[in-house]
Amino acid sequence: MPEVPEPTISWDQESGTIRFIDQTLLPERYKVVTCRTVKRLIRAISRLEVRGAPALGVAGGMGVALAAVKSRTTGRDALLREVEKAAGDIAATRPTAVNLSWGVNRVLTRIREAADPGEARRIAVEEAVAMAEEDQATCMRIGDNGIELIPDGAAILTHCNAGALACTEWGTALGVVRSAARAGRRVQVIACETRPLFQGSRLTAWELSRDGIDVTVIPDGSAAFLMRKGGISLVLVGADRITRDAVFNKIGTYMHAVCARHHGIPFYVAAPRSSFDPGLSEEGVTIEERGRSEVSRCGGRTLVPDDAGVWNPAFDATPLSLVSAIITEEGVLRPPYRFGGGKPT
Amino acid sequence: MPEVPEPTISWDQESGTIRFIDQTLLPERYKVVTCRTVKRLIRAISRLEVRGAPALGVAGGMGVALAAVKSRTTGRDALLREVEKAAGDIAATRPTAVNLSWGVNRVLTRIREAADPGEARRIAVEEAVAMAEEDQATCMRIGDNGIELIPDGAAILTHCNAGALACTEWGTALGVVRSAARAGRRVQVIACETRPLFQGSRLTAWELSRDGIDVTVIPDGSAAFLMRKGGISLVLVGADRITRDAVFNKIGTYMHAVCARHHGIPFYVAAPRSSFDPGLSEEGVTIEERGRSEVSRCGGRTLVPDDAGVWNPAFDATPLSLVSAIITEEGVLRPPYRFGGGKPT
Repeated sequence: MPEVPEPTISWDQESGTIRFIDQTLLPERYKVVTCRTVKRLIRAISRLEVRGAPALGVAGGMGVALAAVKSRTTGRDALLREVEKAAGDIAATRPTAVNLSWGVNRVLTRIREAADPGEARRIAVEEAVAMAEEDQATCMRIGDNGIELIPDGAAILTHCNAGALACTEWGTALGVVRSAARAGRRVQVIACETRPLFQGSRLTAWELSRDGIDVTVIPDGSAAFLMRKGGISLVLVGADRITRDAVFNKIGTYMHAVCARHHGIPFYVAAPRSSFDPGLSEEGVTIEERGRSEVSRCGGRTLVPDDAGVWNPAFDATPLSLVSAIITEEGVLRPPYRFGGGKPT
Repeated sequence: MPEVPEPTISWDQESGTIRFIDQTLLPERYKVVTCRTVKRLIRAISRLEVRGAPALGVAGGMGVALAAVKSRTTGRDALLREVEKAAGDIAATRPTAVNLSWGVNRVLTRIREAADPGEARRIAVEEAVAMAEEDQATCMRIGDNGIELIPDGAAILTHCNAGALACTEWGTALGVVRSAARAGRRVQVIACETRPLFQGSRLTAWELSRDGIDVTVIPDGSAAFLMRKGGISLVLVGADRITRDAVFNKIGTYMHAVCARHHGIPFYVAAPRSSFDPGLSEEGVTIEERGRSEVSRCGGRTLVPDDAGVWNPAFDATPLSLVSAIITEEGVLRPPYRFGGGKPT
């Protein structure tokens, strides 16, 4: 593992490839992958080697740039057709996080403006790299904006990983934790392990303990009881998509929101504006259902007998009525939320 | 696996030993262990080879009988001292389920009445075997008493395993499911996998699918979202101890109770009277905290980095105010509950 952590995902200018940390291997192994083809990137997104809404936005943009750079086509229209095909394939890989298609479309739009393939390749890479840089700056602003919500001595419950590994650096929910710690607040993070893929225990615990921030892993089902015992000051999570009425985030988030409300504990969401999708409401979003084996097997063990069914949704929806505030790069939004559905934003 | 399932735990008259199904190996392997010493039984209870409140009651009683039968002592007082030492060791193995010490004390009391070691051994075995038979009859009565709470077509959420494997046969919560199915009700069980030890996915799913009852495993954190989507008719769980103000059960139970209340879904507990401990209130009960490795490792994988903490309580407490009814062998209790604290039982 390098002394100075490298970004979760980045563009290698020299080789014209994407570099990313393979998140399926943590915490047992730290491995940086050099990704040379769109096909390999799609596999990485599908297998969650790269995951987290903001990182998926950057991955989408870099994937379109990669398609442009690697194309051997010399005609402008032929290049555009190739890149559009790749863009569609990338965006379809995971349906719930809005950032993926947002990132894809952002670079695709710039490519369409180019006069020739050479210019298309140049501005595609420029745009993708700019997106990664903006993501870092956005996370830093989200972090700083969130400090006001974190009291000194706070015990912060989080779910899944909305950290540096979900973005390029710093993180959204964990960006707020990092900013608060840097500002001198004493903080303690309770990381729900996040079944079935353990992003909380594997990724959140890894990146926070690496930064010297106090972190304790708990099974997802014990969070409510810890709230009852007075061990949680606030809940702070990320988001994969925020519609005009609900926050879509990792399965289990809704349970924490309901239990936080029951105990009078604030429930905060930290997310960039690129995760907002005010044109949609809850029922308009497809929740990705993932394979049986994520639940039925772990390591070398079989956990579910073959005759039993498995339900494995990757996300759930938390109505905005349960959300105490949303921390964005533009500031902290509080109810009543007015960012969509024809209402003033 | 035998065609006719054998009891979860039983006394082998011929060899004077205890037989039990090793529940740590399911669903991958079905293995019946012959237990010849108290030391081996304590290991089995500690490792959860035998678990579940009613089964622990029977195990406690049979363990005391085993101590008496295996003792080489010829004097009455010396035997009593040996058996009392064994009884204390067995009862101390797990602190939360009241049934364990209840079972231990029941056989110990009978041994104290005996005139000589021969009689002590005989009545200890008689009492332990009677406890197992009573447990089966109790579960059948709990099951039949609960039928009235199960509407036709019910989708029943359960947590952990309160089934045949938690008792000698039939089960408490799953006993109600079995009785309802036998009475012609169409039922579907949603089994929460129950981290960290997966008793829901490994045991509940195994025993229900073996019986031909429709069962689907979900991660614990997805239960609340399934309630929101209208996929749960009622919650039905067992209990390890019922004090005058709270139900102690597997960690995660409290979260389901809070979420059921939020969604207006009934939350039922099924338990024998031997799980009731009305002399105590919530704060008087020790909640067992188990080892880090149950959370940090699974199937050869390391899930939590070494620098991060782990909190692993085995149980939580659900206040009776969240419990819609308690199904016992004597009938269905409804609020306001009056079984302790000086109030009429």
